[in-house]
Amino acid sequence: MFEKIAIIGIGLIGSSIVRAIARGKLAAEVSIFDKSADALAEAETLGLGTKYHASAADAAVGADLVVLCTPVGTYLELTKSIAGSLKPGAILTDTGSVKGHVLKTLQEHVPEHVHFIPGHPISGSEKSGPSAGYKELFDHRWCVLTPPEGADETAVDQLRAFWEAIGSDVEIMDAEHHDMVLAITSHLPHLIAYNIVGTADHLESVSKSEVIKFSAGGFRDFTRIAASDPVMWRDVFLTNKDAVMEMLGRFSEDLSMLQRAVRFGDGEKLEELFTRTRNIRRSIIDAGQETDAPDFGRHPASQDDGEA
Amino acid sequence: MFEKIAIIGIGLIGSSIVRAIARGKLAAEVSIFDKSADALAEAETLGLGTKYHASAADAAVGADLVVLCTPVGTYLELTKSIAGSLKPGAILTDTGSVKGHVLKTLQEHVPEHVHFIPGHPISGSEKSGPSAGYKELFDHRWCVLTPPEGADETAVDQLRAFWEAIGSDVEIMDAEHHDMVLAITSHLPHLIAYNIVGTADHLESVSKSEVIKFSAGGFRDFTRIAASDPVMWRDVFLTNKDAVMEMLGRFSEDLSMLQRAVRFGDGEKLEELFTRTRNIRRSIIDAGQETDAPDFGRHPASQDDGEA
Repeated sequence: MFEKIAIIGIGLIGSSIVRAIARGKLAAEVSIFDKSADALAEAETLGLGTKYHASAADAAVGADLVVLCTPVGTYLELTKSIAGSLKPGAILTDTGSVKGHVLKTLQEHVPEHVHFIPGHPISGSEKSGPSAGYKELFDHRWCVLTPPEGADETAVDQLRAFWEAIGSDVEIMDAEHHDMVLAITSHLPHLIAYNIVGTADHLESVSKSEVIKFSAGGFRDFTRIAASDPVMWRDVFLTNKDAVMEMLGRFSEDLSMLQRAVRFGDGEKLEELFTRTRNIRRSIIDAGQETDAPDFGRHPASQDDGEA
Repeated sequence: MFEKIAIIGIGLIGSSIVRAIARGKLAAEVSIFDKSADALAEAETLGLGTKYHASAADAAVGADLVVLCTPVGTYLELTKSIAGSLKPGAILTDTGSVKGHVLKTLQEHVPEHVHFIPGHPISGSEKSGPSAGYKELFDHRWCVLTPPEGADETAVDQLRAFWEAIGSDVEIMDAEHHDMVLAITSHLPHLIAYNIVGTADHLESVSKSEVIKFSAGGFRDFTRIAASDPVMWRDVFLTNKDAVMEMLGRFSEDLSMLQRAVRFGDGEKLEELFTRTRNIRRSIIDAGQETDAPDFGRHPASQDDGEA
C-alpha cells in the first residue's frame, strides 16, 4: 500500500499501528522514531520496524506516510523538525484526540508539497509503551479524519484505505465537530474519572486501603481510564479547553439536579434517569462498540445455566 | 452447613447465592421467594432451589438462614411479613448496599429469638434477573457484616463461615462506617456514571448516534454501572443520603479545582493528578480486586509479542 511508512512515537498507538501494518503487509519499510532511547531499543527487540531512528527527521526521509503517534503537545516541534525531510506528495497525519488545535497549529509549518490530513483512531487502552500495543487494537473501531478545506481527495482516499486496512471504519468530519464529539465521548469521561479517583485518594473518613479493598462496588471501573497516559491526557485538556469546558458545564448542571433529587428523596426522578441510562448501553453493544458479557467479561468465571 | 436456607428475591444476587450454595453443598433445602411470578418460574426452570413460594412468609418457615436479596426499599414490608414465620435461633441477614438504614428500620421488627445480622457482599454485575447470576460472583470479593451491638457471636461466626463457603472474604464493620466506605467506593461512582450518561443523552451539539458510535474513547466504561438495576439503585440513594451527599460534596470541590486547572491551562497540576491516579489502579490490581488485562480484557484480541 505504501513503500515506506514513518511512525513518530512508538507507544501504545504507534506500536499497535506497526503491528497492524505488519499483519496487513501494508508497507515494505517501516521506520520508527522515539525520543526515548529505551522505547526505541524495546521496539527493536520486539522487531516492530525495519529501521530505528533517534531523530524524527531521519525517520521521515523518503516516507510516503508519516504518522505522529506522540502526545499532541509535541506535534509543533516535531513537525518543524521533520518539515525539511518530507518528500513531495507524502501524507502527514496524526493520531491525537484533539483536531482543531492540531490543524490550526501545524498547517503553516507543513510544506505545500505535503498532504496534511489529521486523523484520530478512537481506540486505546490504559497501558502505555511499545509492548502495550496489539495488532487488533483498531479492529471495528472508528477512525475519524479531519482533512482541511481543499485537501487532496486522492490523498484522503489513500489515508482512508490505510485505516480500513488497519481494521478501522473511517468517518470524515469537521475538526471542530470532532472536538465537540470527543469532548463528551472521551475527554469529559477521563476528566471525571481522574477526578473521582483523586477524591477517593485523599479522604479522611475512609482510608486508602479501604478504597482499594472495596473497589469492586463500582469505583474500580473508573480507575481504568484514570490510569491512561498522564502526558497525553494533560495535552488533550490543554488543547481542547473550550469543548471540554462546555461539556463539563452541562455535566455539572445535571449533577446539581441529581444532587437535589437525592437531597429531597425524589425516587421517581432517580428511577427515571437510571432506567433511561440503561438503554444507552444496549445501543452501544448493538453498535458493536462494547462487549455484552457481564462485568466487561472480566470476571474470572463464565456464566452457567443454573446447574451450579 | 444449614438445613434450610430461604432466599427472598431471586435476581442477580439471590440467584448467584443459590448457585454458590449448590456448588458448596451448603444446605439440604433452599426455598425461594420472588414477588414476580415470572422470576419465580424462571428460577424453577433453571432448577435453582428445592421449593418455590409466592409468599415470603411461606419461604421463611423453618429456615435456619433467611437472606433478603431484594432492593433495600422492600425490606421493611418483607420483614414484617416474615417475622411470624421465623424460627427461634434463625439468622436473618440481607445483601443491601446500605447498612445504617437497614439496622435502624428493621431491628424493632425482628423477633427477639432471631439473630439479625445485616450483610453486604461487594460484588455484582450490571445484569439483572435469575439467569444473570453465576456461582463465582462472590469469589475473592469482600462481604461486609455489620452486626448490631450485642449480637450473638456464634451466629455471627456462622454467617461469616457461610460467606466464606460462598467464596468471599469477610470483614466485620460498623454500619455507619460501612455506609461511608460504600458511598465513595460504590454509590458516588454510580451517581456520577448515571449522571454523565444522562448528560450525553440530551445534548444538542452532539447526536445520540455519535455518542454511541464513538463511545470507545472512554464513555462506554461508564455505561456499565449506569446499566445497573434502577430500583435497587434508587433505594440506595434514598437510604444513604447523608454519606452520598458528603462524598458528592468532596467530588464537586475537587472538580471545581480541576475545572480551574483546565481553564487556566495549568498543565503541571493536571499531570500531577493524572500520574497519582494511575497508582491507585495498580494497588487495586495487586489486591486482587481487578484484572490486569488491558481494557478490562474485553478487547477481542489477545496481546502478542510484537510479531504481528
